[in-house]
Amino acid sequence: MRFEVIPLGTGAALPAQGRSPSAQVLRLEDALYLIDCGEGTQERLRMAGLSFMRISRVFISHLHGDHCFGIMGLLSTMHLLGRTRELHLHGPQPLKAIIDLQLQASGTWLRFPLHFHAVGDDAPQVLLEDERLTVTSLPLRHRVPTTGFLFRQKPGPRPLRPEHVNSIPHYRRSAVKAGHDLVRDDGTVVPNAALTTDPPPPAAYAYCSDTAPHPHLASWVRGVDLLYHEATFTTHLAARARETLHSTAAQAATVAREAGVGALLLGHFSSRYKDLTPLLDEARAIFPDTALSEEGRCYPIGPRSSAPGTGG
Amino acid sequence: MRFEVIPLGTGAALPAQGRSPSAQVLRLEDALYLIDCGEGTQERLRMAGLSFMRISRVFISHLHGDHCFGIMGLLSTMHLLGRTRELHLHGPQPLKAIIDLQLQASGTWLRFPLHFHAVGDDAPQVLLEDERLTVTSLPLRHRVPTTGFLFRQKPGPRPLRPEHVNSIPHYRRSAVKAGHDLVRDDGTVVPNAALTTDPPPPAAYAYCSDTAPHPHLASWVRGVDLLYHEATFTTHLAARARETLHSTAAQAATVAREAGVGALLLGHFSSRYKDLTPLLDEARAIFPDTALSEEGRCYPIGPRSSAPGTGG
Repeated sequence: MRFEVIPLGTGAALPAQGRSPSAQVLRLEDALYLIDCGEGTQERLRMAGLSFMRISRVFISHLHGDHCFGIMGLLSTMHLLGRTRELHLHGPQPLKAIIDLQLQASGTWLRFPLHFHAVGDDAPQVLLEDERLTVTSLPLRHRVPTTGFLFRQKPGPRPLRPEHVNSIPHYRRSAVKAGHDLVRDDGTVVPNAALTTDPPPPAAYAYCSDTAPHPHLASWVRGVDLLYHEATFTTHLAARARETLHSTAAQAATVAREAGVGALLLGHFSSRYKDLTPLLDEARAIFPDTALSEEGRCYPIGPRSSAPGTGG
Repeated sequence: MRFEVIPLGTGAALPAQGRSPSAQVLRLEDALYLIDCGEGTQERLRMAGLSFMRISRVFISHLHGDHCFGIMGLLSTMHLLGRTRELHLHGPQPLKAIIDLQLQASGTWLRFPLHFHAVGDDAPQVLLEDERLTVTSLPLRHRVPTTGFLFRQKPGPRPLRPEHVNSIPHYRRSAVKAGHDLVRDDGTVVPNAALTTDPPPPAAYAYCSDTAPHPHLASWVRGVDLLYHEATFTTHLAARARETLHSTAAQAATVAREAGVGALLLGHFSSRYKDLTPLLDEARAIFPDTALSEEGRCYPIGPRSSAPGTGG
């Protein structure tokens, strides 16, 4: 099952060093979810060959411009391309009024239903649960209301033990794969465990940007396969991180270590860093399975997906 | 005197064919004026090597996204770069609320004074008059309130006739250059015309996007040196132009011919045209001194600045 994330922007508030503002695409099989949408995201989606029309949901972490100034252009282009399929948008409450005001001022009535879902920032809440995925908000600590997002796959069907497949009537197989015991026509019961094996553990991805260290974050993202965490500064600028409610690379790595995640992906790099090696080195000293996110690169999410370049 | 325009985006509403949404920079000596600001304009300003900080005024023609979705990103970047110099923004009234709402949602207090000037669309009005330039709004005909902009240089000082320079006391020269007669210390009066020559005629540039044909437009832009006029479609799609309140290349050229402008620059090309030759050919059949605007190219504005490539 294809489950991966593609960062489209790895920069912080000030565009520089050829880095774009925050945006990521999460791909789960044929579904695309957009996470944050800085200015120019639609252009980078196009460059990455990702179809606007397959995006079913957009998640906006907060209303700083480098995370949301591209949303109007994206909606407008979807509209002009003739989208009719509904789009779900999860984000801070004021985003609704910001969008409505601009649609009104431009005399635009979107051709597709736009369902807005306000995301609170008090406690983690389930934003979406469907047959494949559960998405939970992660309250973060930043200068304006901000949430991260935890994407956790649903467990897949339980694989049938090959030696028993033929002994299970065809019409009972779905129930057995779903975990039920098999009740034979003569009334005997075969325990599920005898017929199936455990499915691969469901993969999980957490997106945390922007945030100062948060006391509960590590517990909320415990054991995820891939953690994206902002690393705006090195420890050298810890005071600046504290002042702006951002994290250092060391702080990001500390969350990864405490949470026991599979791998850590850093991003939201301050424009002052041309060379990002100091950020990477600082994080790896604490959590070795760390990578710098690169725009347009695919990062698989799953048990075997440790950070690229670390030999994991 | 350097007076030129640099188109940064030549596309229409739907980004495609590598063309960006509308934005132009007008350069008058060391001053930069930004006209329209589609998404990604800040990036294209950077690519063109144009300083954000030297932009003193921004003019927004209307609130369709391809003309204004880049304004928040530009303001934000100016703020982050530490701008303190005031910025004047001329545009439709709702733009003020759109900006304020987003600044508020992002908890941003701009470090520089942003002076907003609402532009009406009922009749041409002088928006700005300083020592170098007069800017007048040009009401256009589009689906939402839309104005073009006419930039007219002020006449320069009258050059002194070389043979008389030494006969004019130093302390009287400014007055003579400003057009006054010379009153000598003995009371005799020398008419200005005997001492000076006419300065070069002040150059003028008109920006007209987006608009259906407008009965008064040619009279308002009469004789400008360079007319930028949208040409979204060819005549083949005249019905579509009529329906969307846009112009064909032929209609743009007709305005140029009726107004007797020096040269015509076309832009706002529909994404359906990969090859723009049909638009150019159609316009040149009516007004030969026509060029297609190219992103990042400088177009001088003045009596000798006919369209590049026409040998004018």
